[in-house]
Amino acid sequence: MAHPTLEQIREAAARISPYVHRTPVFTCRSLDAMTGATLFLKCENLQKVGAFKIRGATNAVLSLADREAARGVATHSSGNHAAALALAARWRGVRAYVVMPENATAVKQRAVEGYGAEVVPCRPTLAAREEMLAEVVARTGAAVIHPYDDYRIIAGQGTAALELCEEVDDLDVIMAPVGGGGLLSGTALAVRGISARTRVLGAEPEIADDAFRSLQAGRIIPSSYPDTVADGLRTSLGELTFPIIRKHVDAIVTAGEADIIAATRTIWERMKLVVEPSAAVPLATILSGRVDLAGKRVGIVLSGGNVDLDTLPWRQK
Amino acid sequence: MAHPTLEQIREAAARISPYVHRTPVFTCRSLDAMTGATLFLKCENLQKVGAFKIRGATNAVLSLADREAARGVATHSSGNHAAALALAARWRGVRAYVVMPENATAVKQRAVEGYGAEVVPCRPTLAAREEMLAEVVARTGAAVIHPYDDYRIIAGQGTAALELCEEVDDLDVIMAPVGGGGLLSGTALAVRGISARTRVLGAEPEIADDAFRSLQAGRIIPSSYPDTVADGLRTSLGELTFPIIRKHVDAIVTAGEADIIAATRTIWERMKLVVEPSAAVPLATILSGRVDLAGKRVGIVLSGGNVDLDTLPWRQK
Repeated sequence: MAHPTLEQIREAAARISPYVHRTPVFTCRSLDAMTGATLFLKCENLQKVGAFKIRGATNAVLSLADREAARGVATHSSGNHAAALALAARWRGVRAYVVMPENATAVKQRAVEGYGAEVVPCRPTLAAREEMLAEVVARTGAAVIHPYDDYRIIAGQGTAALELCEEVDDLDVIMAPVGGGGLLSGTALAVRGISARTRVLGAEPEIADDAFRSLQAGRIIPSSYPDTVADGLRTSLGELTFPIIRKHVDAIVTAGEADIIAATRTIWERMKLVVEPSAAVPLATILSGRVDLAGKRVGIVLSGGNVDLDTLPWRQK
Repeated sequence: MAHPTLEQIREAAARISPYVHRTPVFTCRSLDAMTGATLFLKCENLQKVGAFKIRGATNAVLSLADREAARGVATHSSGNHAAALALAARWRGVRAYVVMPENATAVKQRAVEGYGAEVVPCRPTLAAREEMLAEVVARTGAAVIHPYDDYRIIAGQGTAALELCEEVDDLDVIMAPVGGGGLLSGTALAVRGISARTRVLGAEPEIADDAFRSLQAGRIIPSSYPDTVADGLRTSLGELTFPIIRKHVDAIVTAGEADIIAATRTIWERMKLVVEPSAAVPLATILSGRVDLAGKRVGIVLSGGNVDLDTLPWRQK
């Protein structure tokens, strides 16, 4: 099966539009002054469940055949995908089972349960997650919806960049954070279809630079749960996202932890938007001076806003 | 001189529109579920300088005659009005002098200086502020722009509610926080002119309930710098704002400190918007159960978003 086309991303947009927000695109004079660029920030932190993840999850759940959907959906996720799948399942009227590591933040656990999903706790290792997910599927027959390595998810995530390109003409660059690569690969496919001249950059934490290293090596080099503050970007590229990113993304750029924290704070302070550190990674690569986009029109997907307000990034020990 | 008419508020809107944002109006399903109301939140935290205050300040500065403006403008303010006047003066190309108590937050001081104003420190009492302001005026001949007790300011602040009423039909209630009363009186004048049936409620901290007590007594009863977390609402009604509020505001409602902090946090967590505690006071009166607006269409002016991100309200000792 080939990766999603622009047409399929447009179909996903039509499918999910009754449910998800068309999020606003904000500009910010003071950020422009700091970067020398003209920034257009797509506010997926203001999206349902507080993150772009609802786009892919909704597209996937709505794409299931009735018989398949009736047995419910299941996933393992520590974060935004879990809440997104729970809400998408509720919209479709089916059960959701979420295998979640015991160390997931309280905010995210409450959100998932609040949307009516069954949370199945597991130890915080990939092996434990996968084992528990297999158990759940054996018990329920639920359809597994992977957080990113799924073409329905990738097409759904691409709808954010689709909207951004529809709303803002003539972007020189689009940037998105990259963890498992669902958002970045969907972004690249949308942008490539609409504007061949727009460069697509993925941004990731320096200490979770599996995408950077994978592109260099020409094969997936997983990271082993790096302890980055950008907790949405701890995962590694997947079998489906890697080839799309390899072919359609111009470069992967990285940011240090302190720069990610500083950029997060800058967005809160200057834009009055609560964003999670993962969302600030693209801006961090610019503000730190690693990526020079002076004079460019730059679209950035602010991927999400789910943070635990008791432990702010810049107040942690 | 009579108070501003709806027509004058419309003129103010036209005058300031090249400079200030037409801020978005957001809705939030989870807040609606918590309150039973349908809320429309006018996001003045996303306004220039992070608060509605830029509306009044810009209207006042642009209303000055050239000869008057040439000598600059001056005010005393601990907060958002100071930054607003500084930026409005820069737009007009004139000097701004801001008398500011030494204990003003670092964020607010930096903002004012960043906009090119001259900050004149003083002791944090009303007497010291006024004395220092008189000195500045004697030295410079600058025009004093009071933070709220000025019809040009009142008309400017009324433009936020004007936009809200233009955008959202058929509101049952509009709520705004009340400190000195510039926002509330401008809101009341705008709403009265547009929709006679819409009730206007002012919200203030219980420990800074001078507006409530003043309306009860039929005369201005000042509060003496109450130590509320809603630091924008520590001031008392003025000679111009009081009669407007007395005539055109339906009721003043109050919220306790813990409820203000909880409502602030709820807005950050659910709406992903950084708002200052003053902005959360109207919502706090509803979420605490003191004001029942179930089934109503309620407009709320989220007045500002300037907080010191090192000392979050819910993390203070």
